[in-house]
Amino acid sequence: MLFRTDMADERRDVYKKANKLEDEIEGIECETEDLKDEIRVTRVKILNEKGEEALNKKKGNYITIDVKKITNLPEEKQNNIINSISKEVKSLINIHIKEDAEVLVVGLGNGNLVADALGTKVIENIEVTRHIKKYCPEFLNEDEREISAIAPGVMGLTGIETLEVVKGIVDNVKPKLLIVIDSLASRSIERISKSIQISDTGIIPGGGVGNARKGLTKESLGIPVIAIGIPTAVETAVIVNDALDLFISKLQDEARSNEYLNKLKEEDNYEEIKEALVPGNYNLIVTPKEIDELADDMALLVSEGINMSL
Amino acid sequence: MLFRTDMADERRDVYKKANKLEDEIEGIECETEDLKDEIRVTRVKILNEKGEEALNKKKGNYITIDVKKITNLPEEKQNNIINSISKEVKSLINIHIKEDAEVLVVGLGNGNLVADALGTKVIENIEVTRHIKKYCPEFLNEDEREISAIAPGVMGLTGIETLEVVKGIVDNVKPKLLIVIDSLASRSIERISKSIQISDTGIIPGGGVGNARKGLTKESLGIPVIAIGIPTAVETAVIVNDALDLFISKLQDEARSNEYLNKLKEEDNYEEIKEALVPGNYNLIVTPKEIDELADDMALLVSEGINMSL
Amino acid sequence: MLFRTDMADERRDVYKKANKLEDEIEGIECETEDLKDEIRVTRVKILNEKGEEALNKKKGNYITIDVKKITNLPEEKQNNIINSISKEVKSLINIHIKEDAEVLVVGLGNGNLVADALGTKVIENIEVTRHIKKYCPEFLNEDEREISAIAPGVMGLTGIETLEVVKGIVDNVKPKLLIVIDSLASRSIERISKSIQISDTGIIPGGGVGNARKGLTKESLGIPVIAIGIPTAVETAVIVNDALDLFISKLQDEARSNEYLNKLKEEDNYEEIKEALVPGNYNLIVTPKEIDELADDMALLVSEGINMSL
Amino acid sequence: MLFRTDMADERRDVYKKANKLEDEIEGIECETEDLKDEIRVTRVKILNEKGEEALNKKKGNYITIDVKKITNLPEEKQNNIINSISKEVKSLINIHIKEDAEVLVVGLGNGNLVADALGTKVIENIEVTRHIKKYCPEFLNEDEREISAIAPGVMGLTGIETLEVVKGIVDNVKPKLLIVIDSLASRSIERISKSIQISDTGIIPGGGVGNARKGLTKESLGIPVIAIGIPTAVETAVIVNDALDLFISKLQDEARSNEYLNKLKEEDNYEEIKEALVPGNYNLIVTPKEIDELADDMALLVSEGINMSL
Repeated sequence: MLFRTDMADERRDVYKKANKLEDEIEGIECETEDLKDEIRVTRVKILNEKGEEALNKKKGNYITIDVKKITNLPEEKQNNIINSISKEVKSLINIHIKEDAEVLVVGLGNGNLVADALGTKVIENIEVTRHIKKYCPEFLNEDEREISAIAPGVMGLTGIETLEVVKGIVDNVKPKLLIVIDSLASRSIERISKSIQISDTGIIPGGGVGNARKGLTKESLGIPVIAIGIPTAVETAVIVNDALDLFISKLQDEARSNEYLNKLKEEDNYEEIKEALVPGNYNLIVTPKEIDELADDMALLVSEGINMSL
Repeated sequence: MLFRTDMADERRDVYKKANKLEDEIEGIECETEDLKDEIRVTRVKILNEKGEEALNKKKGNYITIDVKKITNLPEEKQNNIINSISKEVKSLINIHIKEDAEVLVVGLGNGNLVADALGTKVIENIEVTRHIKKYCPEFLNEDEREISAIAPGVMGLTGIETLEVVKGIVDNVKPKLLIVIDSLASRSIERISKSIQISDTGIIPGGGVGNARKGLTKESLGIPVIAIGIPTAVETAVIVNDALDLFISKLQDEARSNEYLNKLKEEDNYEEIKEALVPGNYNLIVTPKEIDELADDMALLVSEGINMSL
Repeated sequence: MLFRTDMADERRDVYKKANKLEDEIEGIECETEDLKDEIRVTRVKILNEKGEEALNKKKGNYITIDVKKITNLPEEKQNNIINSISKEVKSLINIHIKEDAEVLVVGLGNGNLVADALGTKVIENIEVTRHIKKYCPEFLNEDEREISAIAPGVMGLTGIETLEVVKGIVDNVKPKLLIVIDSLASRSIERISKSIQISDTGIIPGGGVGNARKGLTKESLGIPVIAIGIPTAVETAVIVNDALDLFISKLQDEARSNEYLNKLKEEDNYEEIKEALVPGNYNLIVTPKEIDELADDMALLVSEGINMSL
Repeated sequence: MLFRTDMADERRDVYKKANKLEDEIEGIECETEDLKDEIRVTRVKILNEKGEEALNKKKGNYITIDVKKITNLPEEKQNNIINSISKEVKSLINIHIKEDAEVLVVGLGNGNLVADALGTKVIENIEVTRHIKKYCPEFLNEDEREISAIAPGVMGLTGIETLEVVKGIVDNVKPKLLIVIDSLASRSIERISKSIQISDTGIIPGGGVGNARKGLTKESLGIPVIAIGIPTAVETAVIVNDALDLFISKLQDEARSNEYLNKLKEEDNYEEIKEALVPGNYNLIVTPKEIDELADDMALLVSEGINMSL
């Protein structure tokens, strides 16, 4: 089964719909909690191999925090979101390590591409303490945790697989737990930059269960890995695929004639489609992932062209 | 007729297809020239009101330069593109003003949003001479043109309409011609950052002929306006709309049964759709226009959440 | 008299010291107020031509807010600083215009150079309302002020004098008052990014009284101009000059022999000098203003050199 | 002896001057080559312990390339500089490893601070091949070198010492040689961003010979380390110190009376000092290293203050 989403709760939805299940999937537990300020927490637990097979994700906890809005928030609402994230991350940390055990935070992705920069941006804001503990311990409480943080860059720029870099650092720095931040793919435009998934199963390229040794996981690194992911993009093909599914359903429901199809094609369905695609306040556009670089190159060519023409 | 593209040559294609025209549209002239390095120049001329009505664009010249690739070009190929742009811009300038007449270059768009930053980026690279001519004329050849350049920002950030800002500057600086740079919408993913449209009819919001007085045009500013635009985005709805059209055609061609629709729906069409949507080497994603800002906000919330949890 | 500072209170100090004045300068009034969180407000008033001549600054109000620290402030302290700025700016606005009169905020400087980007950065954060008032007045209270904001760029990049751009916009937008933001030069390293000067006399290039018609002032624009400036740099020559003055004083005080000078020269005075130059926690370095651009160029040359060598 | 410069050729000058040496320092060899376009190559070789002691730098090769100008260069001149860098780097590489041996390029410094971003910027432009060799070897010539590149960040942001990060990666990636890029301190404003030092002795914090095991060196990493450094800053104290030295010399030469000192102090020496400090075309300013961050904080406070006042 192909899910085309990294979010465990979306996979659960897709699976249930595809298999027309009304009850919970075997091997899965799920609960939802609504907090104030329209913050919703969904906790999906994959209990065993049955659950692993159903969602093609590793056994463990997958917590999703959905919020309605993140820009221009008053400070109180902002603090409520921060508190929710903190509480869920803490709950997973406490399952695996002691209060004062060392943690390394790793931010994945390419800091130069807007839609892939989340990991790098988060790292810049983490309050690291490891060097203080080492060189000026008098500035920290005795029981304070050693925290370090790194953004290893992407293989296209470094030539090195992320696992190789992180493994090298873990071997030297010897943290007891890893927190990894990454951008995710979602199936829903509405969730872009409004949803946070926190899990204690690490990050596996392609998301499959089989290749855990190639991901940032306990199997590959020897320490528990908490992954925090945020959807920043949806594939166009996913959107069109969904639109086509809806459309075929409609044709079937209405058992329409060829004449109807003709009419449909002549009509301009743009507004309807647009409405369906633009939930909330988003102004959706399709941009190639490389738009940052393309814009620089284009600006150079055009400005030189103008300079020469003048 | 709704074109959903700012490119005159795309509008011509849409109009011809919709009206099943084999010959040229009345009031339109079009020629295509293939240069080396796979540079293609398309020159659409709107001759009269008939042409204006057909394409809903003002009478004048619309030149499109399409290139195959813009990143990592060897210097010679890069120079060929620059030369083509320069030649076409120059040809339009020379229709309207003298060799040494003053020019003001205006870069539109929001420099902080990647997909809208083209105008601002171009302005940073324009070789301005007006201040040198004014204060140190000895550093310039006597017949050199006065060039100035400005990026007025977007109304959402300034509270002022672009026309108001530009009109104020034109009244004070008194150039003889304006060159305006902007990002455009195209109907084709393949053209994003690979196509340059150069016209001598200015820029009209919404593109319609009727409201020329509200755009950056000769009507509103009193001087000729050359517009250079580059497609940087395609609307998702356009893509889905096109995909649906193709799909309906296929259904009609094959006069398929309901059974067929059932089968189709159960199949996974993702790979086919992806292939259709990803011409060339683009890695397509759908990103909200506000992704830059969203990413910053999200990074703050998550990092604070992590800090608090540790 | 050459002051080499744009800060009125520093000019007052220099003038008093140079003229060995114990009492206030004729034509000047000055008061100091200490607020909580070590915020100090100094209000210098130039009353008449005598005062203008002494400080070579126009008649009017010059308010300086000094703070001890601006990074990593707890929210309450941050709000106290914001409140102080707001109160002083408001007091000057209210002298000149009505509660609901239109205001245009102008951010000067080159947004691409770190030490000159303040004006541009401030503009990005101003809550503009003019377009809302014009197009969606129902979203605003009836008595709310029309606010617009623009960053006109620097003459080196636009070829246009700032006054020409601003005059054009003022003529079209017709605000009743201008607020101008700019980076200033100070005589004191300690004040860099820790001091805010607010005045109601506009901004005059070179600071002199004589050329008010060339600056952004009531004389040139026809409306009152409030200037908000922040010191972001000190000239190296100012620092060395001050160090030499101190040194000569020391020599004179001690009526030292040539032998002493010899000894002094052989000693390493670096640590003493460093201490004298680095008040507070600053890690001082001397950087060419163009360092941003130089760093880009250098990185290109070195990386290409390495690529070629490999 | 305190040199306050990382450049071997400057240390040689300081040492010779301090010890009034006319001949070469024992244990040092030095040659200078002038290439076209005013490129000068200085090759300092530290031959033995005597040389190490004199310059407090490790035995090995220190090559400095000085250029007159780096911005707005015509392509030919730019290529000449790139060729010089490439030739010198290659000569050092070939002393230590075979033509096809693996190389890891490491960019030091904080990419967010303009004056410290060089290492990070260079890394973004290195053509890495290691991943291609591993996953798509058919795209590379068989004898092509495996190249990887990483920017490990600074300890203040990561909590991890650079050596720990790099050691971890070297242990996993197993390159045969390291190239390290870093910003340097120079004694001369004129050399900022105009001089490149290439050495085969690695990078040692503080520059001392004694603590080689703590630096990025053959001793600590087990493979040869080529260091490429570029001066991006001069300490203010160094400049003032030099100015005082010059001044004392002048006093001594002229055996001046106290009267003279009085006169000197009353005169305004600013212009002379400025001239002495501003060789070439630099517009010197003193900026705290933290100016990037300070500017952001300040812009926030001021804009909020304005917003509140309006």
